[in-house]
Amino acid sequence: MEPILADSVRLTDDGVSILDRRVFPAERVWVHCATLEDVAKAIEDMVTQSSGPYFAALWGMVLAAREAERLAPDAARAHLERAGARLVETRRTNNALGKAVNIVLAHVPAGAAGPELVAAAVAGARAGDERYRTRSAALGAHTADLLPDNATVLTHCWADLYLVELVRAIEAAGKRVAFFCTETRPYLQGARLTAETLVEMGVDTTMITDGMGAAVLASGQVDALVTAADRVTMDGHVVNKIGTLGLAVASAAFDVPFHAMVQAPDRLAPRAADVPIEYRDGAEVLSPGAHPDIRGHYPAFDITPPRFVTTVVTDRGAYAPTQLADYYREST
Amino acid sequence: MEPILADSVRLTDDGVSILDRRVFPAERVWVHCATLEDVAKAIEDMVTQSSGPYFAALWGMVLAAREAERLAPDAARAHLERAGARLVETRRTNNALGKAVNIVLAHVPAGAAGPELVAAAVAGARAGDERYRTRSAALGAHTADLLPDNATVLTHCWADLYLVELVRAIEAAGKRVAFFCTETRPYLQGARLTAETLVEMGVDTTMITDGMGAAVLASGQVDALVTAADRVTMDGHVVNKIGTLGLAVASAAFDVPFHAMVQAPDRLAPRAADVPIEYRDGAEVLSPGAHPDIRGHYPAFDITPPRFVTTVVTDRGAYAPTQLADYYREST
Repeated sequence: MEPILADSVRLTDDGVSILDRRVFPAERVWVHCATLEDVAKAIEDMVTQSSGPYFAALWGMVLAAREAERLAPDAARAHLERAGARLVETRRTNNALGKAVNIVLAHVPAGAAGPELVAAAVAGARAGDERYRTRSAALGAHTADLLPDNATVLTHCWADLYLVELVRAIEAAGKRVAFFCTETRPYLQGARLTAETLVEMGVDTTMITDGMGAAVLASGQVDALVTAADRVTMDGHVVNKIGTLGLAVASAAFDVPFHAMVQAPDRLAPRAADVPIEYRDGAEVLSPGAHPDIRGHYPAFDITPPRFVTTVVTDRGAYAPTQLADYYREST
Repeated sequence: MEPILADSVRLTDDGVSILDRRVFPAERVWVHCATLEDVAKAIEDMVTQSSGPYFAALWGMVLAAREAERLAPDAARAHLERAGARLVETRRTNNALGKAVNIVLAHVPAGAAGPELVAAAVAGARAGDERYRTRSAALGAHTADLLPDNATVLTHCWADLYLVELVRAIEAAGKRVAFFCTETRPYLQGARLTAETLVEMGVDTTMITDGMGAAVLASGQVDALVTAADRVTMDGHVVNKIGTLGLAVASAAFDVPFHAMVQAPDRLAPRAADVPIEYRDGAEVLSPGAHPDIRGHYPAFDITPPRFVTTVVTDRGAYAPTQLADYYREST
């Protein structure tokens, strides 16, 4: 079954519809974006997150091409490039936005205008969509290969299409799987996105609080910790949602493998020190009505050193965290 | 400053007043118990928790003595013993209830009746109150000795009087301290009780979610992990609120000492296997409106093996987790 979150940014005749992940699953509301600017605002307003902004940027560029349909070639190209810059600036730490913009721009030939311009942008967005899904599917299949039949997997936060493709690959291989999901405070992505999507796909799903992961790992019930990674440095540090580090350390302590999923290690980040950690507003971790003298501390990500990582799974296969240079060596 | 949670069960002329920890600190409501049965119901209804039921049982026994004031000696004694049995059955896994009942019964001489009976029960309850506070103060002082000046301490859940006495001992020694507190889902004891009490005592207090502990420990900002223990087995396993294990494992991984506070190791629990883990209703970890196919898993406690414990601090001093037999050897 296709879970709704695997297809939550859609091009329509009159715009782009984006499923509002801020209120999912309590409400299933689609935000309609009639213009490129509406799409940019939706990304800024966190209507979608994880892989969502990448798809929103692809289809947002198609809206920009439609807006430029009646312009002369040079003006049309300039409009597209301004649109791309606008999308990239919505979330400056999200590299995927630039990739989405660039694949569309690369498909639009110099001098294109009118319907040709729009058709080229659509072709570019489709190529970007397909590329991301194909790589995610490869990643999911390589991760599934690491799991035994009847595996129980612990995951954290929301691995988005990697998770969906992992489940599909496990099922395609005729294997079964059950998941433990952490709720992932303070935004509850695990409870709201991961658990809902897993049950939508018919997977046996158990929710725990973030503090229960070590006990579940120590109990012998879990065959693997599997999470996505926002980034993996070339020296094998896994940057992911805050909470991943604690689970990875507990996995190592109780001899449970930790597989981190990322399409590719980040050549722009040779070492952990090259990745700045985003700190969000500490007020988001405080209870309503907390005493005003209590401070909140909210690092959005943590960095798991390679000694606590068993495998980095990419679209090209599984690597030890100390062997990530091989990912690029094989491609040349 | 005396924080309100350190004196949250009070004998009055017409009953026992218990601060309602279920709604604290959003509301500061006292539940008035006019009878022994009201006290038992309040304990069953979780009006108070942690050390609260111990104090409620002490003063509840005084209400039982008042109820028996007009009875003949044998009937009065029988009433007190029934009252004690009623209190013990409110929470069968809480050993402290039996201790509170027994210290009051031990102070009531055979044949006592009338005002003498009540006075003896009050003396017993006062002795129990003082004994618990004295042991907690000793424990706090021994723990304070393990911390440097200007220490930053990470704690989990709510260590109740041990925490209050630890802070008092640190201040008495002329040292300063700052705390990180986990929120401790799903009941948020860390956010609701620990953080509020620390700021009430004037301590620098920072709140994190349960998943952030490892990142804070890895950052080098924390000098020690300090928690209470519900029980410590004679072979050095620390049984405490779910989430302690993950923090202890991360502390060991990042060379931060873990000090577990308990008045005494449990001679009735030689090994971890002797401690049954309480599982609570899994629904308590689910978000409101979660898909009905999502299960919740809620072990209330976890067990930290001695290899992840630096020190077990008791009222008689600090012990390595492998040396707990010495606690009883020294007393004989």
